[in-house]
Amino acid sequence: MFRPEKHGLESDFQLTKFTTHTGCSCKIPQKVLEKYLRGTEIVNKNNDGYLIGSGMDCAVIPLNRHKDYLLVQTVDFFYPMVNDPELLGRIALANVLSDVYAVGVTDFDSVEIIVSTSTSFTEKERDVVISLILKGFQNSLQANGYHKTPIAIRQLKINPWCIIGGIATSVCLREELILPSKAQPGDVLVLTKPLGGQMAMDAHLWQLNQNEKYKSLLSEFSDDDIRETFEIAVKSMTYLNKNAALLMHKYQAHCATDITGFGLLGHAQNLAQFQKQKVLFKIDKLPIIKNVLKFSLLIGQSTKLRSGRSVETSGGLLICLAPDAADKFCRDFEEVTKGEQKSFKIGHVVASIESGAVLCDEVSLIEVNL
Amino acid sequence: MFRPEKHGLESDFQLTKFTTHTGCSCKIPQKVLEKYLRGTEIVNKNNDGYLIGSGMDCAVIPLNRHKDYLLVQTVDFFYPMVNDPELLGRIALANVLSDVYAVGVTDFDSVEIIVSTSTSFTEKERDVVISLILKGFQNSLQANGYHKTPIAIRQLKINPWCIIGGIATSVCLREELILPSKAQPGDVLVLTKPLGGQMAMDAHLWQLNQNEKYKSLLSEFSDDDIRETFEIAVKSMTYLNKNAALLMHKYQAHCATDITGFGLLGHAQNLAQFQKQKVLFKIDKLPIIKNVLKFSLLIGQSTKLRSGRSVETSGGLLICLAPDAADKFCRDFEEVTKGEQKSFKIGHVVASIESGAVLCDEVSLIEVNL
Repeated sequence: MFRPEKHGLESDFQLTKFTTHTGCSCKIPQKVLEKYLRGTEIVNKNNDGYLIGSGMDCAVIPLNRHKDYLLVQTVDFFYPMVNDPELLGRIALANVLSDVYAVGVTDFDSVEIIVSTSTSFTEKERDVVISLILKGFQNSLQANGYHKTPIAIRQLKINPWCIIGGIATSVCLREELILPSKAQPGDVLVLTKPLGGQMAMDAHLWQLNQNEKYKSLLSEFSDDDIRETFEIAVKSMTYLNKNAALLMHKYQAHCATDITGFGLLGHAQNLAQFQKQKVLFKIDKLPIIKNVLKFSLLIGQSTKLRSGRSVETSGGLLICLAPDAADKFCRDFEEVTKGEQKSFKIGHVVASIESGAVLCDEVSLIEVNL
Repeated sequence: MFRPEKHGLESDFQLTKFTTHTGCSCKIPQKVLEKYLRGTEIVNKNNDGYLIGSGMDCAVIPLNRHKDYLLVQTVDFFYPMVNDPELLGRIALANVLSDVYAVGVTDFDSVEIIVSTSTSFTEKERDVVISLILKGFQNSLQANGYHKTPIAIRQLKINPWCIIGGIATSVCLREELILPSKAQPGDVLVLTKPLGGQMAMDAHLWQLNQNEKYKSLLSEFSDDDIRETFEIAVKSMTYLNKNAALLMHKYQAHCATDITGFGLLGHAQNLAQFQKQKVLFKIDKLPIIKNVLKFSLLIGQSTKLRSGRSVETSGGLLICLAPDAADKFCRDFEEVTKGEQKSFKIGHVVASIESGAVLCDEVSLIEVNL
């Protein structure tokens, strides 16, 4: 656990206080962006099934001069949602790579870190925080087998809030990708991480700050419970979607997206609307990190979570697979992760007049321990 | 000229007030970053002459799985230094692409815009500003022949300051690049834009705000003079370094870098230290936008400008060429730009014990009108 005083900082130093928009809540709704793009030629919609526009995950672009190859690239950044800078670096890496995993690509030609210090940091705070963020980012890359992938950082910027994110780039042949457009009626929806990570992180911050929300939690939970929930979220959010992407190929997934700032339902809707066929994604199960649902009820802010709209940071992949493939995927996923991670069958795909995603009336809220 | 009231905004709306770090002044000194990278495997130095580390311009990385190709990529962003959002978009584009032009590459497989709204914008201000920034970015791409280059924006972020920047990516064969390492004693240093753009922009803001610095300028200059200087800076800063890059190939340039946040001397030093041979770059001329030197003297802040250390945003390329090639480069540059832009022979390269860049004692300060 990160202890500021061990690094020569004040014991009350909290990285998350250097922003008001933690994690992936720092995105403006896509509809607003789309409004601004009207009348420009800036990409907004897919083109030939290749170029993935602003609603989807990464860019997938045929190279101008070497047309057999596709440039697969994602950029993302956010602001600290945890106080531990090394942990922040690891979550940021998982979050950045996730969009590329969503198209089934697991090799990178380059990973570049985007980071800024905060105008509010002292020099000492900057020294400690930035070094540890970079360390966390790199540690995770190494630990996940990316020894040969060049990681770079071009500059250190300054900003009111501490920015952390990156760019992941892969130049691929067509067959390396699973473009997210082949959902079929009858497919099963599989989600590879539980929901609620953001709130688990928030609860941990309330605990640290002993605020009103924390006091609400204490009516039913102990400090250990809150810490345990936080640890489950850490385990989930630092986990790369790499194995999920590899299994997408093994089980011939039809399409996938990753679950982040627009919540499960938002991303499911984007994915459904991207399909060649008109399909409806019907979600009948929400797997939620242990205790998080109850936390949200205790503080009177459970609506988003219960309706599949909670903002997620570094969430799992939502994948459409044929039914028997989905079963095998889930078993294999638990096996390759040695039981450390779980995936969930959360719904199915039906034919529809208009594409979209909905929560079934009788949705089950499942508590998840990792 | 951008008039806020024409867009339904308050007449005193000024985009530059939404940041305290205008333009490329938002970078932390590279030495600080290098300190943080020690002990990590995050790229800091060149590797096999290919991978350009944190001191230089763009990343140049052999692809993992398709080794004939090199990934050439740059990312940069900054905060508004002009109040006109459409102009800001055009300057941002020129600034982003510049690092790739510095290695002689002029085709892009993808250009991606990074932009954030400000937490301080009203919804209306956001609508106007973001739309116009995007328009400026795209207008400039189109006007410079990049009709087939996909431009994309993935998300609109939120931040205290309005962020504008982007990522430019090109996948190249080796011969398309001029790696910046072949400077020779006897080479001539050519600079393709004058210095002082940032201060010209600042003077225009002082004029708008009628502050003390503006009053200092009025002792010798008229409002028209200040506006004229600003217009020269606009012309320079919106100009893409594309033609310079093309001419680098035509005249077999030995190396180049682009002049931005670390000033002429800072970037010249980085470039010199990157050379295979030990060389000293001796700068004997500083071409400065008309009136800017005098502005800086009148406000008592001329030291950086006179010592070649002024922060530049969207500056020119600094190129090493053989002497006769340098002459032809400069003539050709003026021709292809139809006299709209100028390049300058500003020094020469000598052998040295240690690589570096210096200003000669007898440096000439040249006033430039475009």
